[in-house]
Amino acid sequence: MTRPMPFLSDNAAPVHPRLWEAMRSADHPDNPYDGDALSQQLDARFSALFGRECAALWVATGTAANCLALATMCAPHGGVVCHREAHIEVDEGGAPGFYLHGAKLMLAEGDGAKLSPEDIAALIDPIRDDVHQVQPHAIAITQASEYGRAYAPEELAALGAFAKERRLGLHMDGARFANAAAFLGGSAQTAARAASGPVDSLAFGFIKNGGMGAEAVVLFDPERAAEVRYRRKRAGQLQCKGRYLAAQIIAMLEDDLWLANAAHANAAARTVAAGCAERLMHPVEANELFVALNEAERAALRAQGFAFYDWGADAARFVTAWNTRAEDAALLGKAIAGL
Amino acid sequence: MTRPMPFLSDNAAPVHPRLWEAMRSADHPDNPYDGDALSQQLDARFSALFGRECAALWVATGTAANCLALATMCAPHGGVVCHREAHIEVDEGGAPGFYLHGAKLMLAEGDGAKLSPEDIAALIDPIRDDVHQVQPHAIAITQASEYGRAYAPEELAALGAFAKERRLGLHMDGARFANAAAFLGGSAQTAARAASGPVDSLAFGFIKNGGMGAEAVVLFDPERAAEVRYRRKRAGQLQCKGRYLAAQIIAMLEDDLWLANAAHANAAARTVAAGCAERLMHPVEANELFVALNEAERAALRAQGFAFYDWGADAARFVTAWNTRAEDAALLGKAIAGL
Amino acid sequence: MTRPMPFLSDNAAPVHPRLWEAMRSADHPDNPYDGDALSQQLDARFSALFGRECAALWVATGTAANCLALATMCAPHGGVVCHREAHIEVDEGGAPGFYLHGAKLMLAEGDGAKLSPEDIAALIDPIRDDVHQVQPHAIAITQASEYGRAYAPEELAALGAFAKERRLGLHMDGARFANAAAFLGGSAQTAARAASGPVDSLAFGFIKNGGMGAEAVVLFDPERAAEVRYRRKRAGQLQCKGRYLAAQIIAMLEDDLWLANAAHANAAARTVAAGCAERLMHPVEANELFVALNEAERAALRAQGFAFYDWGADAARFVTAWNTRAEDAALLGKAIAGL
Amino acid sequence: MTRPMPFLSDNAAPVHPRLWEAMRSADHPDNPYDGDALSQQLDARFSALFGRECAALWVATGTAANCLALATMCAPHGGVVCHREAHIEVDEGGAPGFYLHGAKLMLAEGDGAKLSPEDIAALIDPIRDDVHQVQPHAIAITQASEYGRAYAPEELAALGAFAKERRLGLHMDGARFANAAAFLGGSAQTAARAASGPVDSLAFGFIKNGGMGAEAVVLFDPERAAEVRYRRKRAGQLQCKGRYLAAQIIAMLEDDLWLANAAHANAAARTVAAGCAERLMHPVEANELFVALNEAERAALRAQGFAFYDWGADAARFVTAWNTRAEDAALLGKAIAGL
Repeated sequence: MTRPMPFLSDNAAPVHPRLWEAMRSADHPDNPYDGDALSQQLDARFSALFGRECAALWVATGTAANCLALATMCAPHGGVVCHREAHIEVDEGGAPGFYLHGAKLMLAEGDGAKLSPEDIAALIDPIRDDVHQVQPHAIAITQASEYGRAYAPEELAALGAFAKERRLGLHMDGARFANAAAFLGGSAQTAARAASGPVDSLAFGFIKNGGMGAEAVVLFDPERAAEVRYRRKRAGQLQCKGRYLAAQIIAMLEDDLWLANAAHANAAARTVAAGCAERLMHPVEANELFVALNEAERAALRAQGFAFYDWGADAARFVTAWNTRAEDAALLGKAIAGL
Repeated sequence: MTRPMPFLSDNAAPVHPRLWEAMRSADHPDNPYDGDALSQQLDARFSALFGRECAALWVATGTAANCLALATMCAPHGGVVCHREAHIEVDEGGAPGFYLHGAKLMLAEGDGAKLSPEDIAALIDPIRDDVHQVQPHAIAITQASEYGRAYAPEELAALGAFAKERRLGLHMDGARFANAAAFLGGSAQTAARAASGPVDSLAFGFIKNGGMGAEAVVLFDPERAAEVRYRRKRAGQLQCKGRYLAAQIIAMLEDDLWLANAAHANAAARTVAAGCAERLMHPVEANELFVALNEAERAALRAQGFAFYDWGADAARFVTAWNTRAEDAALLGKAIAGL
Repeated sequence: MTRPMPFLSDNAAPVHPRLWEAMRSADHPDNPYDGDALSQQLDARFSALFGRECAALWVATGTAANCLALATMCAPHGGVVCHREAHIEVDEGGAPGFYLHGAKLMLAEGDGAKLSPEDIAALIDPIRDDVHQVQPHAIAITQASEYGRAYAPEELAALGAFAKERRLGLHMDGARFANAAAFLGGSAQTAARAASGPVDSLAFGFIKNGGMGAEAVVLFDPERAAEVRYRRKRAGQLQCKGRYLAAQIIAMLEDDLWLANAAHANAAARTVAAGCAERLMHPVEANELFVALNEAERAALRAQGFAFYDWGADAARFVTAWNTRAEDAALLGKAIAGL
Repeated sequence: MTRPMPFLSDNAAPVHPRLWEAMRSADHPDNPYDGDALSQQLDARFSALFGRECAALWVATGTAANCLALATMCAPHGGVVCHREAHIEVDEGGAPGFYLHGAKLMLAEGDGAKLSPEDIAALIDPIRDDVHQVQPHAIAITQASEYGRAYAPEELAALGAFAKERRLGLHMDGARFANAAAFLGGSAQTAARAASGPVDSLAFGFIKNGGMGAEAVVLFDPERAAEVRYRRKRAGQLQCKGRYLAAQIIAMLEDDLWLANAAHANAAARTVAAGCAERLMHPVEANELFVALNEAERAALRAQGFAFYDWGADAARFVTAWNTRAEDAALLGKAIAGL
């Protein structure tokens, strides 16, 4: 078996050829930092995509993107409501505590790592309105969720209304935003708008979708952009040669490559899912599969050359990517079916 | 004139072809973050270069490299002594305040933006040893300095002895470490050791020297590496696809490209300097020139197509890079001479 | 009814007469901050009490005492294990996030708001040893717990062994340490040692026990004291006229007033408990009672002049104090019994 | 000699008898924290004094008062302009770095530790409006200054206009606000308004003026009070028994005790000054004297029983207080005159 880890994670996939081309095209002197011609286009590009004015900044990681956006809406003495299994809580090494200067993550429960207004109210309504208890300032949701579930436009609308009513900011961790958008369907613009709904900010992920090292922080209140630019520099996230990051992002937006890549990954996930429907722990809406598999079964799959992460003692996670080959997906589906 | 900014800054230069090749060679699935085969080589590579055991981690910016290293040696309630014109004080947007959780930069004076033990003692000796005053925990120097001056090995030895005596950490901002090493001369190993001296940590810069977006944090006390790895993640600096950063760094170390690039830039700087010796505000030891030029003279140079930054009201800064053409350097020297 | 809130909280009680005397005795010029004759005695006083060398510093609040101690054992990128209902998690307004620079509270479950090694292991054993997950650096327990439960010496010994094995710091929030010590019994020295066990640090509370505004941070590793002194100043907790705080603490230690006050409060709690044994939600070991009472019952008690906090929808919390009159305690017990 | 330190510092003076009385009067159960009847009066009391609506909160130290106020006007990525010798820069152990999450103190020069708009402009005008440089968010001045100098109303008006024009917050460190007000003269109301001018916030000091452990944070934009209340709790500054702090402050305001105490101290300082006019390094406007005295002269004074701090190698600082006896002041003046 020559490809040892195709289902480990989309974050290990190589870089899409069109991004290489774009970076090479940017390989001439230009203004440093984000003063170059490409970085200067980002606001307009994302405003066009989302159909509302926004500002967009590149950073190197989703962790930074999430944290910089959250810092605009949660003071150090406040809290951010997120799902108990949210990536910012579980897998970002405490970055929100750093970027938000000790603000608290407030952990809500919800099916499929998604949150509803009711889930959030159940957490925050009992909080006394006094200084002894940290008050919520913002909500962070993940699109697609940590279990590969997409928020539908009406779910987002409900969250937006709830956030507005409670005067909470609403941030979206979009590490796999493209996969959610592809699931929700339509043209790139339609999909992007459906998947983003009424959020205040979005960490728009490209790296898991074929990028090398560029994500976008999208701020739907462009007034916030100046503050984020200062915070980005202060966080050591302002790269000298920003044009290579901007080039990746623009190449992704050109001809809707971001959506095509995600659609490809989603299709591969569905192919796998077809072989293991009864074992699925969550509906497959994006590019992740959570499959009930015992230890022996996992070992059997690994013996066949499939790479993936264990998910607790009795399950495994498989992730497809922009470069997953259809035949590999089919093979995996068949292999699980044959266990 | 078709190249409008060749002397603006080395941080605007393109990426060296051998780094492109190295990144493309890494363009296959591998473990994410720093689990890939290339990232795993860094400790050994740098240990060999410096001739003493060290740990090395990639990050995307010099700002992050400096701050992560300083955080190992200065508690939040302590201070870092640096030159009043040090980059960490003047041009990093307050990043040390962020990464060091409010620790204080303590500003010393010294010729050419360099510090001697005497300069530091003059600052810290008057500090009362009581809790009302912030106590120094570390020293940060820049090699080459903000005025393009190199610390000689004996100067570094004196600083090392002083730091040890005072129980202060000693960090080196090496955004242009290669240029300093090239100035100090010898083989890559000899030069690296001469330029680093007895420091505890080094932010080894590659971006200004032909890199795209990778610097190395080098920790000469490898015990500190684990902490820095946690802090790097927490700072949103742990990229998914670290192999593209490691590839750049390894390509730089291969066949001593880092030293050759820097020697080229230094030579170009000397060529320029030859045309304006009497106007130089600082000796040209690395790849920066600070030249006394009044407003009219600067305008005249710009009219000839030269790009550069003003340096106050009566001077200009010119920076050469790995890709500066010898003929451009000669032209600039001649142009200044002809003013 | 002329005393409307005797069971609301011990933190609302007046100041003990002997502390007034002590403060008045200190009312002459002396060195400011902690340079006065009284503050200088604290280390020795507490070392004698605990029978092992320690350093002790006054601060104005238990919040500050807890946080300053925890900052010695948990780095900003680490975590502190505490009970889900621990005061530092629930009622300190996010202070640990501030003082520990964004470190994370990691919430364990345990009966009566107490933690055992097993409770802690259940939380931390699943944490992957990688940089994506915050690692535990310390444990914080509360003596007596948030439900008025005391840790027995053997429980503390087990926690100490566990912390040592896992290389975790062990801190004790002793807002009601005196009540726990009184419960565990013996002379002041015996009780103090039994109640503190092998902890690394203790926030020794005096305010709820008759003090005005002084708690002690006790560090059983005196090496840590210097750091805490710097951090105390930096936190704005170093008062000019520290002698009035030290005077309170010393008066508390004189003739074991701290233990007598707590024993008085505990006895009052037992008196109340005698009237409502079958309604108690937790054994009464210190000076807090958690009593199952529905809304109508609570209203009935309030109509009789008793003041207390609701505890959720179906219970109430009653707290006795150094000044609770035996007849009031008896009246309350009788009133509950008569519902 | 039986009083060894009368001129060391006003922060070492005892507590005024009327504050003792006030605290004893508060010695009955009341709501904890700042829910008591006295704390609830503070907003109205200070609004009346200053003739404009404001909110006022007690804290235990001037350090906390300054930092909590500054945190309302300076983001973590911003800077606070203050004098190079300002107490917040020199003597607060880095507290602003802690409370403001790494914001930068930006050091301006000015005569007598006072700042004018021109002094501030000289510092901030050269700051480039880009993300590489920390931008000023606020100004902090000290009334009376670190050299005992008072800002006149017209100086404050100019600073207020400047701050408004530059959109900077304006905070006043009033550790010795009373002394400045007494110098500026008039009734308590007139003096308070003259001394505070158009500031956004004031750390109104009482401790150096006869208090035990209570200062007031006065916020002239009462909208900011809610945030400060949360931050105060989070900083461990919310004491359980706040009524003893509020009692001190209210006693100070009653019958203008604060102004009478300061006037007494100022008069004592003038008495001393009369004996050493030609040695004064700064005009004596409040209660501090900076007197040129060589080492031998200082030794001679100490031999006569006078206590004071050295101020560098060739001077001494003397501070008078609410309890300085007129005869002691006269003796000191005479002693210096007789050197």
